[in-house]
Amino acid sequence: MVSVTVWNEYRHEREDDEVAEVYPDGIHAALADALAERGHDVTTATLDEPEHGLPEDVLDGTAVLLWWGHAAHDEVEDAVVDRVVSRVRDGMGFLPLHSAHHSKPFKRLMGTSCSLKWRESGERERLWTVEPGHPVADGVDETFVVAEAEMYGERFDVPEPDTLVFLSWFEGGEVFRSGCCYRRGSGRVFYFRPGHETYPIYREETIRHVIDNGVRWAAPDDGPSPTFENVDRYEG
Amino acid sequence: MVSVTVWNEYRHEREDDEVAEVYPDGIHAALADALAERGHDVTTATLDEPEHGLPEDVLDGTAVLLWWGHAAHDEVEDAVVDRVVSRVRDGMGFLPLHSAHHSKPFKRLMGTSCSLKWRESGERERLWTVEPGHPVADGVDETFVVAEAEMYGERFDVPEPDTLVFLSWFEGGEVFRSGCCYRRGSGRVFYFRPGHETYPIYREETIRHVIDNGVRWAAPDDGPSPTFENVDRYEG
Amino acid sequence: MVSVTVWNEYRHEREDDEVAEVYPDGIHAALADALAERGHDVTTATLDEPEHGLPEDVLDGTAVLLWWGHAAHDEVEDAVVDRVVSRVRDGMGFLPLHSAHHSKPFKRLMGTSCSLKWRESGERERLWTVEPGHPVADGVDETFVVAEAEMYGERFDVPEPDTLVFLSWFEGGEVFRSGCCYRRGSGRVFYFRPGHETYPIYREETIRHVIDNGVRWAAPDDGPSPTFENVDRYEG
Amino acid sequence: MVSVTVWNEYRHEREDDEVAEVYPDGIHAALADALAERGHDVTTATLDEPEHGLPEDVLDGTAVLLWWGHAAHDEVEDAVVDRVVSRVRDGMGFLPLHSAHHSKPFKRLMGTSCSLKWRESGERERLWTVEPGHPVADGVDETFVVAEAEMYGERFDVPEPDTLVFLSWFEGGEVFRSGCCYRRGSGRVFYFRPGHETYPIYREETIRHVIDNGVRWAAPDDGPSPTFENVDRYEG
Repeated sequence: MVSVTVWNEYRHEREDDEVAEVYPDGIHAALADALAERGHDVTTATLDEPEHGLPEDVLDGTAVLLWWGHAAHDEVEDAVVDRVVSRVRDGMGFLPLHSAHHSKPFKRLMGTSCSLKWRESGERERLWTVEPGHPVADGVDETFVVAEAEMYGERFDVPEPDTLVFLSWFEGGEVFRSGCCYRRGSGRVFYFRPGHETYPIYREETIRHVIDNGVRWAAPDDGPSPTFENVDRYEG
Repeated sequence: MVSVTVWNEYRHEREDDEVAEVYPDGIHAALADALAERGHDVTTATLDEPEHGLPEDVLDGTAVLLWWGHAAHDEVEDAVVDRVVSRVRDGMGFLPLHSAHHSKPFKRLMGTSCSLKWRESGERERLWTVEPGHPVADGVDETFVVAEAEMYGERFDVPEPDTLVFLSWFEGGEVFRSGCCYRRGSGRVFYFRPGHETYPIYREETIRHVIDNGVRWAAPDDGPSPTFENVDRYEG
Repeated sequence: MVSVTVWNEYRHEREDDEVAEVYPDGIHAALADALAERGHDVTTATLDEPEHGLPEDVLDGTAVLLWWGHAAHDEVEDAVVDRVVSRVRDGMGFLPLHSAHHSKPFKRLMGTSCSLKWRESGERERLWTVEPGHPVADGVDETFVVAEAEMYGERFDVPEPDTLVFLSWFEGGEVFRSGCCYRRGSGRVFYFRPGHETYPIYREETIRHVIDNGVRWAAPDDGPSPTFENVDRYEG
Repeated sequence: MVSVTVWNEYRHEREDDEVAEVYPDGIHAALADALAERGHDVTTATLDEPEHGLPEDVLDGTAVLLWWGHAAHDEVEDAVVDRVVSRVRDGMGFLPLHSAHHSKPFKRLMGTSCSLKWRESGERERLWTVEPGHPVADGVDETFVVAEAEMYGERFDVPEPDTLVFLSWFEGGEVFRSGCCYRRGSGRVFYFRPGHETYPIYREETIRHVIDNGVRWAAPDDGPSPTFENVDRYEG
């Protein structure tokens, strides 16, 4: 059981009928359901709440933070971004999903543009588990399909992942590193590509299962808190 | 709780009084105690048993295999080495300890000589946790000391670790990558340097704790078993 | 200018008319031409020569070794494999091409089965340069096509590459890590997937160019030769 | 021959007699000498010049940028930091030296705090070449000494290096990852620890040689410039 906070921009779902039909209570609600079903202690937070729903005391109780944003990345206050990034460095797990590749916290943690190619055409995506022995592949098939997806294509401008777990194939000729694990400071980051505001991808069992795996993998252990300071000699 | 088999060459302890005094029941017994105390289901196996104590049915019941050898690496039958290597590729965790850097299974899994510098002079070793957010650093201090150690020094001829968790400093001027994590096939390998036949290092709580962490980290999940064969088209 | 030896099994080309038509002088001749054109000093060696054409003095003069084999991997003598592996560890560059994924030296250097999925159906392969800043991507386009290829699909059972430079997409739904860089000992290994005995892939300029890049990248520098021995204290 | 710009904060040397004695013309001058001697085309830039000496046209002509800063990291304008970071992502090599671990561009490229432990006590540092086959180890000994160094100790809060080439041992009991290679976007980053404002370390031949190696390694090739945009299908 992990204490999870699901953060969502939550604009599309309120402003666009097509999106509202797929996720009437917001993408965060669908993700929270998936994780609550699997035994986690889940809360949600959204952009338009005070401090975007992420004041210090919420983060105090968060072991793993999921992040979904798309059209309003720039509206996330830098003070909240600093707070999130700092928590990740201190050990909080972080799962940016799909279009959160361009979220401020992910870009800050990666140090790159995190840009990519895209095409919104409801095409077929086939994922391959290229690292079957990694915890986020637990109970996952060797290959699985998202029937209608927005395409994301390489070059994905991220640092080479510490571990690359999933690769995507798209009908139109592209490939993508879809499941990428990183360590930053004491925290673990799992970027997972599938998901979209107009396709009910977060209602699919396989996708929900992988996100659960990601949460379990990213949940912090109790490692040492390094000191960064002027020190006396240890030896001699 | 992980099903662990502790393998030991178990020659020194029977032939050398100095070693027998430190580990009267063998190094495997000390390691098995450490892991049983921490809740694992532990058995042991040694070189001079039939099939070195590692017939197929023992490995069937082994989630993680510890390996301690020093003077008789060459006496390990290739058929048993093949079996161990194959199990690791299929997901079994593997923890070669100290002088097992030159064991056949580790060398086979690494593809390099795994050679290093050494000096047996009972000198002080200080370890540093350089990746505090990794599971094998759970509950470990930022730095800890082995009062009397055999020195191992770089260049350690291994592939660059997937994750480097511990670094050692030695009185005499050397450094060493002492805690190295690898994936090979579906299996996880954790090489951990401390330990020796004439110093009671495997009786120290910190060392026992790290080995426990290694066991937990290396224990397999239930990922997909890839097929390697001529396949029909999935798409189109 | 790099001293290159191109090794080829050279059986298909002599025994199969279809292959002979594509590579009348052998695959090694086509590869040697490509590299000689680009200014390298190239020799060739084949399976049926004494010591497979790779006696010590040939390797003495080899900075980078290319390897092409397919149907007779098992006929390569272990003594020659030992010699090649040992040279790589000492700094010789090594480029296993296409079906050499199952060659003895590559498997020995990787420590894994190096197995994969395949389908010989002349289908379209599209490669993507996912690490555009790596030397083997010098002068290469972001994406390029092999019109008729044998498919190789994931899971490719290799250790995670030190750097993954190219990814392949196949018509039939598969993806593959097609350009994989590794260090082993002091040597560099570049596995490059494209190529086949019945498709004239090694006559294509882009492919020849990538192989040239691989040769330049894998050519050894003059780094230190580590000693592996009992040493005196350096300090104190 | 690489077009190099050496950037220096250049405050200590003008304000502190002890530093002025070691580097009367500034640390940048010593570094520029070292690289000009080795055949590079070198210019310098300093904090107090307009745009810190790094206007667009200077960066247009810069293949590799060295960076030395210590006490005035915060005075570097964010617009210039953005410019430098953007150039690195587009392929410019970047060599942050010693206390530039806390420079804005390095922290931005890493996504972590880049903090560490330190002690200014003129103690002995011994470096070890742990990856002898890497280009930055070309012509370097297996171990070399800096007689009087400021200590930097782990935990060094950076992402795990793509390649770790040098490790440092310090008299007082610390170790440090002293030579760290990264890719960020299309650019290469080499962090090299040795150097200080009150010890004449940049006058030592071995150190100058390693920096030359770093420059050669980090110099960009001519890889593809990825597009990041909405794209049409390539296939089907």
